[in-house]
Amino acid sequence: MRCVAALSVAALIAAGLLLRRRRRRQATAALLASPHTGGVAYLAAAYREATLTPSDAVEHCLAAIAALDGTVGAFEQVYAEEAREQARAATAALRSSSALPLFHGIPFALKDLVDVEGRVTTAGSAARRRHVATRTATVARRLLANGGILLGKVKTVEFAAGAWGINPRMGSPRNPWDAAVHRVAGGSSSGSGAAVGARLVPCALGTDTGGSVRLPAAFCGVVGVKTTEGLLPLDGVTPLSHTLDTAGALAVCVADAALMLDAMLPPRLAARARHLAAAAEGAARGVAGLRLAVAGEADRRALADARLLRAYDAALGRLRAAGAALAPLELSLVSLAASNGLICFAEGYCHHKSLVDDAAAPLDESVRARLREAGHAPAHAYVEAMLGRRPAAERFLAELDGCAALLLPAAPMLPPPLEQVDPASACSLFTRAANYLGLCAVSVPTRLTAPTEDEPALPTAVQVICRPNDEATAIRVAAAVEAACGLEGALPPLAYPPLRARSR
Amino acid sequence: MRCVAALSVAALIAAGLLLRRRRRRQATAALLASPHTGGVAYLAAAYREATLTPSDAVEHCLAAIAALDGTVGAFEQVYAEEAREQARAATAALRSSSALPLFHGIPFALKDLVDVEGRVTTAGSAARRRHVATRTATVARRLLANGGILLGKVKTVEFAAGAWGINPRMGSPRNPWDAAVHRVAGGSSSGSGAAVGARLVPCALGTDTGGSVRLPAAFCGVVGVKTTEGLLPLDGVTPLSHTLDTAGALAVCVADAALMLDAMLPPRLAARARHLAAAAEGAARGVAGLRLAVAGEADRRALADARLLRAYDAALGRLRAAGAALAPLELSLVSLAASNGLICFAEGYCHHKSLVDDAAAPLDESVRARLREAGHAPAHAYVEAMLGRRPAAERFLAELDGCAALLLPAAPMLPPPLEQVDPASACSLFTRAANYLGLCAVSVPTRLTAPTEDEPALPTAVQVICRPNDEATAIRVAAAVEAACGLEGALPPLAYPPLRARSR
Repeated sequence: MRCVAALSVAALIAAGLLLRRRRRRQATAALLASPHTGGVAYLAAAYREATLTPSDAVEHCLAAIAALDGTVGAFEQVYAEEAREQARAATAALRSSSALPLFHGIPFALKDLVDVEGRVTTAGSAARRRHVATRTATVARRLLANGGILLGKVKTVEFAAGAWGINPRMGSPRNPWDAAVHRVAGGSSSGSGAAVGARLVPCALGTDTGGSVRLPAAFCGVVGVKTTEGLLPLDGVTPLSHTLDTAGALAVCVADAALMLDAMLPPRLAARARHLAAAAEGAARGVAGLRLAVAGEADRRALADARLLRAYDAALGRLRAAGAALAPLELSLVSLAASNGLICFAEGYCHHKSLVDDAAAPLDESVRARLREAGHAPAHAYVEAMLGRRPAAERFLAELDGCAALLLPAAPMLPPPLEQVDPASACSLFTRAANYLGLCAVSVPTRLTAPTEDEPALPTAVQVICRPNDEATAIRVAAAVEAACGLEGALPPLAYPPLRARSR
Repeated sequence: MRCVAALSVAALIAAGLLLRRRRRRQATAALLASPHTGGVAYLAAAYREATLTPSDAVEHCLAAIAALDGTVGAFEQVYAEEAREQARAATAALRSSSALPLFHGIPFALKDLVDVEGRVTTAGSAARRRHVATRTATVARRLLANGGILLGKVKTVEFAAGAWGINPRMGSPRNPWDAAVHRVAGGSSSGSGAAVGARLVPCALGTDTGGSVRLPAAFCGVVGVKTTEGLLPLDGVTPLSHTLDTAGALAVCVADAALMLDAMLPPRLAARARHLAAAAEGAARGVAGLRLAVAGEADRRALADARLLRAYDAALGRLRAAGAALAPLELSLVSLAASNGLICFAEGYCHHKSLVDDAAAPLDESVRARLREAGHAPAHAYVEAMLGRRPAAERFLAELDGCAALLLPAAPMLPPPLEQVDPASACSLFTRAANYLGLCAVSVPTRLTAPTEDEPALPTAVQVICRPNDEATAIRVAAAVEAACGLEGALPPLAYPPLRARSR
């Protein structure tokens, strides 16, 4: 995989090692020659080698957006001029300083749930088209402080209250893996998944309350990191559930997501580039010797699509072949989905009550119904769902004993055509438990399905679930999974422009 | 006040100072001559002066219980033989060691919500008469580890789910201040208030979720300390509300309550005897120079009983005369009572659902109705009550700015006759806010009402409310309030036996 090569470059930089100029040039040339261009670690390496500048990267993104976003529909707002200006400054800084963060000059997008001072945050709601933020969310400030270039805001399900990526009023981004049929991108971070999947931007911030980072990642064939509750601050992020919301990173490969995550951590932690290092370790060491828990019978039965079950088993087969020891975890995680959903939507009702209860407010009626129903569930059901979290987490951690991670499917189905989705159904069966149990998880794309007459090749995904605050292990294992059964650099069938150096 | 004298002795001990033998003997003689005997600090001093032994104290308590508890009805279980045995050991330890904790040899009672290994915890429920605990709650272990002698368990409202002190099946302790009419003791720590009020035991543990330490303290003319959420661990304490429950101390005077509280803290903190020192400081310095917030108009209007309003104003008048600066706090705390009640009883329903929903279970029907109603309130009401805590606390802290404490009435009425109480009504209007806002508070008895033909002299009380984890200030101010407008050593009209040295 290309990304692993990009990773090695960035990881070596992170470790303070310098490759010799000749070897570096070779690595860069190999990457530039590939179609799988423009990733985070790749750009970080290219900037240091002076083969590309931040202005090149921003122009490339803007060109890709201009060429493709009419089809993809991922962006809510593009901040073209401001991004160009930031890119010029970042380019100049690169020339004058050698001690810049790895995220320096990296274009990124924010889910339009995240406040940026002076910009509108719609939170996916037509009712908030004029909702100008008066401050910048801490996560966004950290990405900017680390040199990131804000390219724009990407679409979301209204108030993040849904997992299909559908938003009738504000737009449902198109899954980039089907050029013929509008398939859903998954969501609520639908714009983040579609934008990164279509290679319009190297990485994007998403939020995950029941799967909303991992599902668009799975549907769009990118990596999504759902962080542990509390790891990243949520000030300035429109809440759905103050209990379960988490911010996360979407990117093309594990190393890129790790690098973005590092850039969102508080400075003290970010300086250690610990997740990027974990990704490098995972890519280098693979799964040999790792003991991994896998879906038990109850969870396997919940995986309705036989093709996905085959894909999951094929991925596990590759991991076993690569030296992992696999052990089924019989505790059904799928059974926890309902409790998570109740907490999530009951709290969401409280946060958006004034709009939900205003019949004249232009809301997606399926979102309105979902929030209202949970808000009017009996209090004891909510309290019991909350009380159940700790014992359930203790049971899970006991079951996981001796395993580095639990590998589950990320989604129970392939990304369906938009028109076939019943918004009242759920695609978050396999993701909600990680929020409920307070865990971290990474969704990693695995091999594409074989195309049929009716359906193109579509990505499948495995979810690497780890203990709370053990993102380093999740990323290390995810990188190993990616190395063993990743997408192998396959690209969506979109005619996007190749990345070229223009500004030199 | 006698207690202040006892305090000075204990506080000097706490400070590591030794009075000369002659002065000490004088102080002890003065205390022994008084009817207000047997308090915690008094006993601690007397043990050290060897004028009394733990066995004397335990025999005195057992005699008082034998003489009066048939009338008071505070005890659920008396552990006479075990207490005598502990007392003998404590007496022996006193003779052989000089470095013992201040709580050494102090008899105490536990609200029957607190587990002691091998003992029944009824939690006030007839359905739990055979519920034997398999471990000892941390708070109880700490009292025992500091040398305390467990005299027995005292009665509580069923599952602590009520504030009047009424328990039709398990017994409603009698308020010791009326020898003619069975008035309520207040609750849910009704047994703790009645036992200490009747001087059957020097101090007792209570729990406070909406006022259940402060109300029995107020109704029974004793001091009740409601600690900040999380200060004292609640393992082994039957939950009502896992969010709002707090453990606290009931004792005859502020210094005694402070000493008991110190004995319930983790060893590291207890070693500092910080609350006893705060009480000593408060008693010595008084309120001169203190700025204190007092009830604003909305809260004053909620105080329906004109006699209590007069008593409150009289107490404030004494504090002003003693040099305090008083400023009304216009933020109505009474308005927060409903939110606190919803959280408390909705969570209580979840903890006791199996009994509440079992029509055959022998429950107090008013408790059953209260829990069931809150449990079936809409989830959004509960979530909003929870979400409202932080902003409300921030508003309160902003309003309190510059003041050491807020002084409110503790109860909105005098302790009524049992038969006049409507169990569906609430006496916790003035206490619930401290739980909702996560504050600490001390209820301090103030002057007795003037007796009338129909009613004896009854205690009134002021509640000293302080910032979270600022128990030291709450106790310091409470001791100053006690010094300025306390009960002046008045005793309930019960013929209890005087404390005498017998075991020497």
